[in-house]
Amino acid sequence: MRPVFFLSDFGLEDPYVGVVKAVLAQRAPGVGVVDLGHGLPPQDLRRGAYALFEALPYLPQGAVVLAVVDPGVGTERRAIAAEGRWWYVGPDNGLFTLAWLLDPPRRAFTLERVRPPTPHGGFPGWSPGGYTFHGRDRFAPAAAHLALGLPPEALGLEVPVADLVRLPLALTPGPEGEVLTFDRFGNAITTLLQAPLGGWVEVGGWRIPVRRTFGEVGEGEAVAYRGSGGLLEVAVNRGRAREALGLREGMPVRLL
Amino acid sequence: MRPVFFLSDFGLEDPYVGVVKAVLAQRAPGVGVVDLGHGLPPQDLRRGAYALFEALPYLPQGAVVLAVVDPGVGTERRAIAAEGRWWYVGPDNGLFTLAWLLDPPRRAFTLERVRPPTPHGGFPGWSPGGYTFHGRDRFAPAAAHLALGLPPEALGLEVPVADLVRLPLALTPGPEGEVLTFDRFGNAITTLLQAPLGGWVEVGGWRIPVRRTFGEVGEGEAVAYRGSGGLLEVAVNRGRAREALGLREGMPVRLL
Amino acid sequence: MRPVFFLSDFGLEDPYVGVVKAVLAQRAPGVGVVDLGHGLPPQDLRRGAYALFEALPYLPQGAVVLAVVDPGVGTERRAIAAEGRWWYVGPDNGLFTLAWLLDPPRRAFTLERVRPPTPHGGFPGWSPGGYTFHGRDRFAPAAAHLALGLPPEALGLEVPVADLVRLPLALTPGPEGEVLTFDRFGNAITTLLQAPLGGWVEVGGWRIPVRRTFGEVGEGEAVAYRGSGGLLEVAVNRGRAREALGLREGMPVRLL
Repeated sequence: MRPVFFLSDFGLEDPYVGVVKAVLAQRAPGVGVVDLGHGLPPQDLRRGAYALFEALPYLPQGAVVLAVVDPGVGTERRAIAAEGRWWYVGPDNGLFTLAWLLDPPRRAFTLERVRPPTPHGGFPGWSPGGYTFHGRDRFAPAAAHLALGLPPEALGLEVPVADLVRLPLALTPGPEGEVLTFDRFGNAITTLLQAPLGGWVEVGGWRIPVRRTFGEVGEGEAVAYRGSGGLLEVAVNRGRAREALGLREGMPVRLL
Repeated sequence: MRPVFFLSDFGLEDPYVGVVKAVLAQRAPGVGVVDLGHGLPPQDLRRGAYALFEALPYLPQGAVVLAVVDPGVGTERRAIAAEGRWWYVGPDNGLFTLAWLLDPPRRAFTLERVRPPTPHGGFPGWSPGGYTFHGRDRFAPAAAHLALGLPPEALGLEVPVADLVRLPLALTPGPEGEVLTFDRFGNAITTLLQAPLGGWVEVGGWRIPVRRTFGEVGEGEAVAYRGSGGLLEVAVNRGRAREALGLREGMPVRLL
Repeated sequence: MRPVFFLSDFGLEDPYVGVVKAVLAQRAPGVGVVDLGHGLPPQDLRRGAYALFEALPYLPQGAVVLAVVDPGVGTERRAIAAEGRWWYVGPDNGLFTLAWLLDPPRRAFTLERVRPPTPHGGFPGWSPGGYTFHGRDRFAPAAAHLALGLPPEALGLEVPVADLVRLPLALTPGPEGEVLTFDRFGNAITTLLQAPLGGWVEVGGWRIPVRRTFGEVGEGEAVAYRGSGGLLEVAVNRGRAREALGLREGMPVRLL
């Protein structure tokens, strides 16, 4: 059975993550589920896209990547499964944009033939359901289906991979890029693929040296370095670059 | 072995969740444990009660529901295990009120015969323990006991199910209900079981249309719809109804 | 195979925890991984040290404790594995100080021979990597190695256990101690090993009674009691002692 790696913005204040796992277990008993994180800022597609990019190279090939950051749930946005070297299940809203730079999908299917899970229990005048929890009703059953090695054709109609939604984001060798997103430590991740050690980068009016790690500057000083995802990051040693330097998503970044 | 579904307000800043899982593994080696969420607002019984209501219909029947939101730990409140179509372990403080609408318990037992786990290690003048971590010392051993299929009679005395504590909450077809709780996205979950599509609902001085999903109103607009737990929810499309509409727990909600 | 208990300050907003687990699964297929929490306040070594102290006595002996709170990653601080009754993998920065009071290590090794995981995928001009994610590149492979029961000598050079870094913290029977850290509920954990029931403790200008549990004082009242980790804690019944009493880390605490 293929393992499922599960990313969402569901948080841990609500039972949504647990419900999705219960459905995975109901449909694919014994499936291995590993959390890729559920504390993403709600509906932050760029952060989700980066998280998948950072994680993907370390996941076993053939694994199912189940990702739900879905501001458009309940609208006309499509639900999809796509096949590359890994499998992808989630909303067709650009969430996989950066992962697919690493692993362009060969085939994709919509999920309209997916059978939602059967709830147990109830009482007169009530049943669970609703139209807004696709993680439970559509994505989890589809991910379980693929984890079992069943054919994706059974999930729905094939759609051209060229039609899948992508975010307007490019990773680039520079010299012009932008702030892609931030991580929990307040580091800014940029769209720059690399920068020469010893050089400089400009962002938000600051001129920042490029070093090997943030340990090479003093406490409270800003530094740029190649981050664990292979993109140039801007940090403040033992501080938070986001607030300390006033950085924002989409801000231009330039190699000097 | 029965799987354990584990809900708490322990958060992930402290090791309490991990300690409970270590005790479950110590007492029931190989038991499957699925998190139903640990980021509940501390001591928020209504939110916990709703989380269990929302998750229950999707859990495998016979599973053990271990739930710890326990403002009264260290007081006289009872610790209990109850048997319905699922098993319940936790404080007797009303946390299971809504779940038991779906699955009224047939039998219940207090936990005074539960043997706490044996800690390893220590040094002169110190041992772990205390009287305030029932998740570790009482609920986890009881849940492990039931996961192993052992008889509940061994846990403690049988108590009448009619004596179990319930929160003063009713789910109702309307027309009068209240705001039950909120979810992470700031949506308000109400106690209303249903509302006619195309109708209106009144809450906090607002008059809000009832639609199929929040995607049917414009960005920033308020809407009511049947949520994933089967109750009427009030949301703001791509916004947070809680703050945007000034909603509070317990506020009256009325179908128009 | 030895189970791995994993503590970090990685949070759940980023995919770091999931990536570490993917590497563990890649190197030690089938290994059991239990989270000890990942929501620690970033870079808070005292809180991390206390979390390990609180959890350790309940972990199966021989288990691998993988702990990453690492403000010095990317500097000269060493990466280590240590052997006591449990195994320890993490940065050599004092994070294990309190755990090692319970289980002083007999041997320790640096991790310079650890082989980082091999990423899959990439595209021209990019590869993952960086020098700042030791959880993925160094600690997870070392923990997997030990989980498999392989010899620690293969990880790196043996170093004297006396040279391992310790935080300047002492647990003491009193009468003088300090506020060690706080938990999620705002309770203050002190370095005092015990205090006589019925006595008093002084902290932050307050004189606080010592009782069995916080349920023995009225709502909103301050109380000290022996906490679940066996240390004296200061709480406010149904409140947050940290804010209500204005307590801070390192503040002196005195038994009266």
